[in-house]
Amino acid sequence: MALLMEHQFKQLPADKQVETRSFLESVSYLPPFFDCLGSTVFAPIKADLVGNITTIKAVFDSNPSRFKTLQKILEAEKELHGADWPKVGATLALMWLKRGLRFIQVLLQSLVDGEKDENNPDLIRVNCTKAYELALKKYHGWLVQKLFKAAVFAAPYKADFLKALSKGRKVKEEDCLDKIRQFLVNFTAANDAIYEMYTKMNAELEYTV
Amino acid sequence: MALLMEHQFKQLPADKQVETRSFLESVSYLPPFFDCLGSTVFAPIKADLVGNITTIKAVFDSNPSRFKTLQKILEAEKELHGADWPKVGATLALMWLKRGLRFIQVLLQSLVDGEKDENNPDLIRVNCTKAYELALKKYHGWLVQKLFKAAVFAAPYKADFLKALSKGRKVKEEDCLDKIRQFLVNFTAANDAIYEMYTKMNAELEYTV
Ligand SMILES: CCCCCCCCCCCCC/C=C/[C@@H](O)[C@H](CO[C@@H]1O[C@H](COS(=O)(=O)O)[C@H](O)[C@H](OS(=O)(=O)O)[C@H]1O)NC(=O)CCCCCCCCCCC
Ligand SMILES: CCCCCCCCCCCCC/C=C/[C@@H](O)[C@H](CO[C@@H]1O[C@H](COS(=O)(=O)O)[C@H](O)[C@H](OS(=O)(=O)O)[C@H]1O)NC(=O)CCCCCCCCCCC
Repeated sequence: MALLMEHQFKQLPADKQVETRSFLESVSYLPPFFDCLGSTVFAPIKADLVGNITTIKAVFDSNPSRFKTLQKILEAEKELHGADWPKVGATLALMWLKRGLRFIQVLLQSLVDGEKDENNPDLIRVNCTKAYELALKKYHGWLVQKLFKAAVFAAPYKADFLKALSKGRKVKEEDCLDKIRQFLVNFTAANDAIYEMYTKMNAELEYTV
Repeated sequence: MALLMEHQFKQLPADKQVETRSFLESVSYLPPFFDCLGSTVFAPIKADLVGNITTIKAVFDSNPSRFKTLQKILEAEKELHGADWPKVGATLALMWLKRGLRFIQVLLQSLVDGEKDENNPDLIRVNCTKAYELALKKYHGWLVQKLFKAAVFAAPYKADFLKALSKGRKVKEEDCLDKIRQFLVNFTAANDAIYEMYTKMNAELEYTV
């Protein structure tokens, strides 16, 4: 769990505002998560997330003090882009990024909860599929759904996945799951707050790709 | 055919040396080819080609007079990288790029040759599948092959594809095919020369991704 634990998300303040700088800092360590899945097939997914992060960072860097929180960015872009908003800028990038984060979150949660396919307890396909169904499926057309179904077969064995998350160090499965549990606390809270913000600001779109 | 015709490949000289600068210039117009396929599903493929071109261009730009032809690059990298070569640098990028180019070449050739599925004459799936089998299949493991099989269903109707190649202008199918024929002459010659160079220099690798 070295990969995730060394870059925990910050605890959410009482007003549930996510600070842009520390959010960007923390998520920038997540794309390598897809390398842990072990196949080059996941490279385009990683690239998509990196693209989202780059887009948000560019907006933030254009005026760090103005864009102190993620909500400030959405508000400013709503003002700026009029009818094009929210399908534009960092608002669009974060809309997709949060879905990728939710995929990661549900996958990890499902693993620490011990959910498994009793016939294939060493695999993580059921966990990936659950995460996909909750986070992404409804935003994907039939073709991308079909691609997912094929891609999930490339998911690694559970043991290999946990080892990769620990940067190749051999750690006890229970220790690793403990660390994931710890990581999930702030990570889940931050992502939930982002989802809430999209709902409240009417910034969520339901189209499929 | 505006897309391709406005940026024809240069005629190959008698010594069959491909000039790096004009090659890079011509291929830089090809990635939008994948936009003509009409689905965002092809974005990762486009990104892969753009990555190849960027890698080669970076090497070229580091010393344009030294790297006047593609062969000069391969020779210099062979010298420089020793045992890592050819799985390295612009040599690796061009190895993959030429396969993408061959995919495009065979697809277009198959269209101008009038090859079609008699039961689905309006589709280009058979042409895509032929191009895939000749250019790429053997370098892909079972999973990527499976992804291709799913992705080919997203290929557009022939008429829409030809229209997209003409930048949305409505041109007669026969006119469009004529222009493709013309484009293919220098394009095919250049790509054949690159394949020959890889064989002669023992730079071709057969591993799968
Ligand atoms: C030769 C073989 C051929 C095979 C071809 C296969 C092609 C595979 C295609 C795979 C798709 C990879 C996943 C990417 C999917 C993306 O299309 C979607 C939508 O992406 C958004 O689209 C947007 C465009 O929207 S529009 O203009 O409004 O239409 C933006 O471009 C946005 O970027 S932005 O920063 O600029 O704002 C971008 O993220 N992305 C996702 O679905 C997110 C995926 C997250 C991770 C998924 C985890 C799955 C893991 C599976 C593991 C088993
Ligand atoms: C949520 C949904 C989940 C779906 C997930 C789907 C994922 C889809 C994956 C799709 C794959 C897209 C196609 C890309 C394939 C590439 O892996 C291969 C190999 O790429 C090379 O790998 C190399 C790594 O090699 S190694 O280090 O030696 O191992 C290099 O990275 C090299 O780049 S370089 O410039 O740095 O040198 C790079 O091109 N590329 C291809 O196969 C080329 C594809 C060309 C176009 C294909 C046209 C098909 C069109 C289909 C239309 C129906």
